[in-house]
Amino acid sequence: MNLLFFGDIVGRAGRDALLAKLPGLMAETSADFVCVNAENAAGGFGLTKDIAESLFSAGVDCLTLGNHSWDQKTLLQEIDREPRIVRPVNYPPGTPGKGAAVLTARNGGKVLVINVMGRLYMDPLDDPFRGIESELGKHRLGQTVQAAILDIHAEATSEKMAMGHFFDGRISLAVGTHTHVPSADTQILSGGTGYQSDAGMCGDYDSIIGMKKEAAILRMVRKIPGERLSPAEGEGTICGVHVTTDDKTGLATAIRPIRRGPRLIEA
Amino acid sequence: MNLLFFGDIVGRAGRDALLAKLPGLMAETSADFVCVNAENAAGGFGLTKDIAESLFSAGVDCLTLGNHSWDQKTLLQEIDREPRIVRPVNYPPGTPGKGAAVLTARNGGKVLVINVMGRLYMDPLDDPFRGIESELGKHRLGQTVQAAILDIHAEATSEKMAMGHFFDGRISLAVGTHTHVPSADTQILSGGTGYQSDAGMCGDYDSIIGMKKEAAILRMVRKIPGERLSPAEGEGTICGVHVTTDDKTGLATAIRPIRRGPRLIEA
Amino acid sequence: MNLLFFGDIVGRAGRDALLAKLPGLMAETSADFVCVNAENAAGGFGLTKDIAESLFSAGVDCLTLGNHSWDQKTLLQEIDREPRIVRPVNYPPGTPGKGAAVLTARNGGKVLVINVMGRLYMDPLDDPFRGIESELGKHRLGQTVQAAILDIHAEATSEKMAMGHFFDGRISLAVGTHTHVPSADTQILSGGTGYQSDAGMCGDYDSIIGMKKEAAILRMVRKIPGERLSPAEGEGTICGVHVTTDDKTGLATAIRPIRRGPRLIEA
Amino acid sequence: MNLLFFGDIVGRAGRDALLAKLPGLMAETSADFVCVNAENAAGGFGLTKDIAESLFSAGVDCLTLGNHSWDQKTLLQEIDREPRIVRPVNYPPGTPGKGAAVLTARNGGKVLVINVMGRLYMDPLDDPFRGIESELGKHRLGQTVQAAILDIHAEATSEKMAMGHFFDGRISLAVGTHTHVPSADTQILSGGTGYQSDAGMCGDYDSIIGMKKEAAILRMVRKIPGERLSPAEGEGTICGVHVTTDDKTGLATAIRPIRRGPRLIEA
Ligand SMILES: [Fe+2]
Ligand SMILES: [Fe+2]
Ligand SMILES: [Fe+2]
Ligand SMILES: [Fe+2]
Ligand SMILES: [Fe+2]
Ligand SMILES: [Fe+2]
Ligand SMILES: [Fe+2]
Ligand SMILES: [Fe+2]
Repeated sequence: MNLLFFGDIVGRAGRDALLAKLPGLMAETSADFVCVNAENAAGGFGLTKDIAESLFSAGVDCLTLGNHSWDQKTLLQEIDREPRIVRPVNYPPGTPGKGAAVLTARNGGKVLVINVMGRLYMDPLDDPFRGIESELGKHRLGQTVQAAILDIHAEATSEKMAMGHFFDGRISLAVGTHTHVPSADTQILSGGTGYQSDAGMCGDYDSIIGMKKEAAILRMVRKIPGERLSPAEGEGTICGVHVTTDDKTGLATAIRPIRRGPRLIEA
Repeated sequence: MNLLFFGDIVGRAGRDALLAKLPGLMAETSADFVCVNAENAAGGFGLTKDIAESLFSAGVDCLTLGNHSWDQKTLLQEIDREPRIVRPVNYPPGTPGKGAAVLTARNGGKVLVINVMGRLYMDPLDDPFRGIESELGKHRLGQTVQAAILDIHAEATSEKMAMGHFFDGRISLAVGTHTHVPSADTQILSGGTGYQSDAGMCGDYDSIIGMKKEAAILRMVRKIPGERLSPAEGEGTICGVHVTTDDKTGLATAIRPIRRGPRLIEA
Repeated sequence: MNLLFFGDIVGRAGRDALLAKLPGLMAETSADFVCVNAENAAGGFGLTKDIAESLFSAGVDCLTLGNHSWDQKTLLQEIDREPRIVRPVNYPPGTPGKGAAVLTARNGGKVLVINVMGRLYMDPLDDPFRGIESELGKHRLGQTVQAAILDIHAEATSEKMAMGHFFDGRISLAVGTHTHVPSADTQILSGGTGYQSDAGMCGDYDSIIGMKKEAAILRMVRKIPGERLSPAEGEGTICGVHVTTDDKTGLATAIRPIRRGPRLIEA
Repeated sequence: MNLLFFGDIVGRAGRDALLAKLPGLMAETSADFVCVNAENAAGGFGLTKDIAESLFSAGVDCLTLGNHSWDQKTLLQEIDREPRIVRPVNYPPGTPGKGAAVLTARNGGKVLVINVMGRLYMDPLDDPFRGIESELGKHRLGQTVQAAILDIHAEATSEKMAMGHFFDGRISLAVGTHTHVPSADTQILSGGTGYQSDAGMCGDYDSIIGMKKEAAILRMVRKIPGERLSPAEGEGTICGVHVTTDDKTGLATAIRPIRRGPRLIEA
């Protein structure tokens, strides 16, 4: 199966770039399943139902979230009616939405998607390791599901790698999000899991992690809360990974980064 | 001028890989100047004089450091006698060593190297922006120095990018270190500064940021201090960037990532 | 019932002061039960079996811990054989020891002791609220247990107060530890729970939170790891609270701070 | 000289309580100088000119601030015209306002007030130790100024104590703010500086550090951003310290805590 994963969509620049380039990329990769982190899709902060719909219409099969999950509060009411949106699994019990979903790929296979949040330098949610374990325990890779994607929404590279190696062999793709910078450590781990520490964002890379430069820089330099951060508006670059899996094992047979747009070296 | 920069050397795997591959890379790139972050060179923790000597002998022109600068306490005594070792500029006044150096490249040009530490999710040192500004103010790029390298040792991508853009046009290369994962956001910023959020480490990438997997994972999963972390011992991969600059302006005319070794996609 | 609780014993100064003053205080307060946080009892770092024994011999009924629980690794082996030592309840499953104990007071009543760790500015353990809830759910205050003590080992006053108010009416005493400074916000909350944000340490208050001043200050001023921190050695002051409870409800009828020793205003 | 210092005023409850009780306390203590931290005076977030005026009219001589200094952005424009408002000294150069002021007490003596912010678990400002040093270097205690007050706005008790001891003998009163909980470690340090780790807030203590309980608790328990925090509205308790100094040395001859209001044990 061919899986595409794209990192945090940041505002209109990210949405427009993804919508424009996704059809071509899906054709190019014979994509069976497309998963995208959308925690910053709505003006840089959260996700709305309308934006989610437009992404689904363009071919996206599943949307994941992160620490910005609830920046648009309307999503709290809507998420339970949308099986294709997954929020971090390690929010406490009772949180709207769900931390994992099994969805059907274009080739008819089942794909498990799990979203998790790290705890280093982030809001301390529940144990991410046990959260993942609990979802993985409900399925058998290569049998009840043909592929499994883990979106590790985390800051620290150590924590991301620890999760990748800990679940190596039980997941098709373990990929990080949240830093808004694509990593170049794409590899297949020894147990067969495709791994990349961060998918990178879909947004304008002439920015501070997708946000306009001036306000973001002033905030750090002056230590005075200034104008609200807003997404940079130059042409977006989309970043993600393309993984090919063996449906019998659910493991990765190939993985490569994707970077398309005006600012970064394309891949 | 051709500049090579390599990220955090982690232990013997990183040292051996760099020593083995550097001569070929220097020839391949016609390198005029080689700068390497060595904060984890000595068993993963700090740098010793002997290791520094072996790196200089192999062609390295300058070593930078970071939050592990003083893990080997002997360096505190030795650093003031070694002009080619630079520690973060934003340690408080009175700290041994210096935060910047001007060294002579193979082509006779002068290269300014500045090392700085970020403050997000790290020990709060002095203001990194003013630290850099103060060193840049002593020189004129393209006149008193032909190139300037800034090693941004920091955790947060937002802080790294803010420094890159803030000093864009006044530095040849602004490159991050510390996360031990190479980023794939290599670009020349609009003012002419070559930029990559993280150079990546030189070490064994079948690891948790260069350290053996088991101990590092247990620490996160069990929340009990376990055995001391030690560097992974598989074959190392070296990661860095190659920047070509115009000696008249000191700005970047080309930049590309370097990744050589068994685990990552080579570049 | 009369309950005594004392905060973090720091090294020999704290141990000696507590051992010297406890008999008199127990007589003075007709103490039925004595609980002490001992996470720094052994040279400032952790707890040993021998020190625990000496405290039990002096009249202490229960010892609690915190982020320094395992600084003395021998305790990991011994804690499961000692019913009177309680470690934070929100360590992950599988952690040696237990997060709560029911022990018998001198008046024959049963006392539930729960120890929990906060997560703000601390290592992110499991959810402290659910950890406490799960232990409280096993007992009925005023029926199966006559009193319940909650040691909130946490940094942030907001988190401590949130726990106090959240469990108000279900606990006899909710008292903080970890900051090593006694708070003066002693009160009975509206539901009947005795509360103080921090019990304060038992140790030498001419110090930096119980540690020798010079090394602790240098570390902050110079940003260089210096000599290992060690407990200050002047005469100790003991700090804690005395709560009187109604055995029928298990709630507090009176609470007052205790401070005895050379440095602070006695209470 | 008799100095009064009160901790963070939180909203109307804190303002009303201070305004009601200050005249009596000033008479009772023969107060020569009154300093109050007002970073939360305006609805829990920042300070306005009008509120400042009402406090000055009631007898307050100096207002200090903290991490909430600029929550009311109007203050950024107004602070430079008001010599009696002091913001943390370790904001970067160019920040509106000033980090220290010399004001005249009722007895004609000069009082130096310095405000500083800690960096542990807080936004990393400039080095607080050097910031204080630089202001102290402009004056001679007992000669050019008769008293000196240092408001240490910080989270960590270790950092507060380190500053207290580091400047012991050069300041009349080193008192912490920011935790909104009064500490009971009131003492005169060995060099003659009056010290208390936290003055405590002026506000409703039936709250989460001055804020309404429900919203503050939900935020921690549910990990979903909920309704905006707002100050609790019950009757306020005011907390602070009263220090008596020797005008010849500027050092403390007596120090005692002040707590007046319905919730805490009065002092
Ligand atoms: Fe995020
Ligand atoms: Fe994001
Ligand atoms: Fe580092
Ligand atoms: Fe490093
Ligand atoms: Fe402690
Ligand atoms: Fe502690
Ligand atoms: Fe504050
Ligand atoms: Fe405050």
